[in-house]
Amino acid sequence: MTSEEAEAILQEYFAPWIRQLGLRVEEVGERHAIVRLPWSDDLAREGGGLCGQAMMAAADTATVVAISAARGGFVPMTTVQQSTTFQRPVTGKDVLVDVRLTKLGRTLAFADITMRADGGSDITAQATTVYALLA
Amino acid sequence: MTSEEAEAILQEYFAPWIRQLGLRVEEVGERHAIVRLPWSDDLAREGGGLCGQAMMAAADTATVVAISAARGGFVPMTTVQQSTTFQRPVTGKDVLVDVRLTKLGRTLAFADITMRADGGSDITAQATTVYALLA
Amino acid sequence: MTSEEAEAILQEYFAPWIRQLGLRVEEVGERHAIVRLPWSDDLAREGGGLCGQAMMAAADTATVVAISAARGGFVPMTTVQQSTTFQRPVTGKDVLVDVRLTKLGRTLAFADITMRADGGSDITAQATTVYALLA
Amino acid sequence: MTSEEAEAILQEYFAPWIRQLGLRVEEVGERHAIVRLPWSDDLAREGGGLCGQAMMAAADTATVVAISAARGGFVPMTTVQQSTTFQRPVTGKDVLVDVRLTKLGRTLAFADITMRADGGSDITAQATTVYALLA
Repeated sequence: MTSEEAEAILQEYFAPWIRQLGLRVEEVGERHAIVRLPWSDDLAREGGGLCGQAMMAAADTATVVAISAARGGFVPMTTVQQSTTFQRPVTGKDVLVDVRLTKLGRTLAFADITMRADGGSDITAQATTVYALLA
Repeated sequence: MTSEEAEAILQEYFAPWIRQLGLRVEEVGERHAIVRLPWSDDLAREGGGLCGQAMMAAADTATVVAISAARGGFVPMTTVQQSTTFQRPVTGKDVLVDVRLTKLGRTLAFADITMRADGGSDITAQATTVYALLA
Repeated sequence: MTSEEAEAILQEYFAPWIRQLGLRVEEVGERHAIVRLPWSDDLAREGGGLCGQAMMAAADTATVVAISAARGGFVPMTTVQQSTTFQRPVTGKDVLVDVRLTKLGRTLAFADITMRADGGSDITAQATTVYALLA
Repeated sequence: MTSEEAEAILQEYFAPWIRQLGLRVEEVGERHAIVRLPWSDDLAREGGGLCGQAMMAAADTATVVAISAARGGFVPMTTVQQSTTFQRPVTGKDVLVDVRLTKLGRTLAFADITMRADGGSDITAQATTVYALLA
């Protein structure tokens, strides 16, 4: 799957409210994907930092992109569980959402997602997700 | 704190993207809050169901409301960790987000959040959150 | 299923290391179970408090008891995910592990587990678990 | 801190029940540690696989080792939250528990823990932990 095809999945399968995040697929591979969450003042909470809700949403969405890429196309799936830790604030910068599929089973998929401010090496947030694959 | 005062916190401290969820405070108490996430087609993902990202965002936001109510006003705080399980789909209905603060310490707060479709008794999603209180 | 039958499951299906916890089934019902984790100095970490590892293990184990009771007998299953928050220390007291099954599907089960020191009302720890049912 | 000093922490600060796991420090560094969970039939659940409870306990314990190493000695700390996903069964093999501290703050520490069967590259289980540092 190319980044363009993965990008099309972002446009087609997600809620309008999620599309407002403006996520962009930077890279897709056999078992991983990198998605960019562009900075926007619409995502800034009191104090000016990027709201954690946008990072949780980006992690979930990026997992769907990675699983779709690994399966060669979108398959119906549903999030079973997501755990997220918030480690450092981000202000005024895009966030790169790096998803690695650690297990792609027949009915369950597991992912590890690390998020970093663009240009930074420190982890902003980390998530793990579990998905049920429905086809 | 009254529901109106809690409602004002929703308007004042959250990102514009979160305010688009149209969350409404139904009830606040000493250690709990109930927040309504109104159904909107903008929150529907492929297949028509409410997107999980909106539920995660609502759980996080409702926790801030509950902690603020318990402290008698908004205090700076930051989400440390959120774990969410997604148990049943919701289509075409509001979701009631019920937050109970299970521990309100000096520097850390813990909450248990159950989400149900309006009028239903089955759990749609459950979350636990940990917050760091900065004042 | 009676408490005695549930107790037999504890003896039969768990690792010897887990049986050393001395867990006892206090109550089983259609969608819940209460399991006692008896205080033991062998479970005390530096400082004298009950170690969190014992609480995580008890929550996991108690979920198996609750699912088995709901299904009318032990079925092969495997833990998919467990999230635990640790909220208050416990010293010198048993812990009551209260499991409610919030969803018992065909292939996945979800549980909410609250732990309290015997005689106390405050939550010591809370866990959520997701299980894959293999039969 | 040397592996020997880290090993001494394992002996000194953990509950007798945890010491029965026979964990061994393989490696410690500025922001990471590798701990070995030796295979034992005492840790095998019904069906013969390593019980998940032992992996959760090892992940928690290994985090304490990594934080102590990073701080140059044991400091009082308490687990705030642990999330674990179980991805593949292990039978008859040691498990290597690889902890990376992703944030070591003044009052909170965050870790990412991956577990693999000795000699394997696939992930058996993954955990994230949050600790409160009390000194």
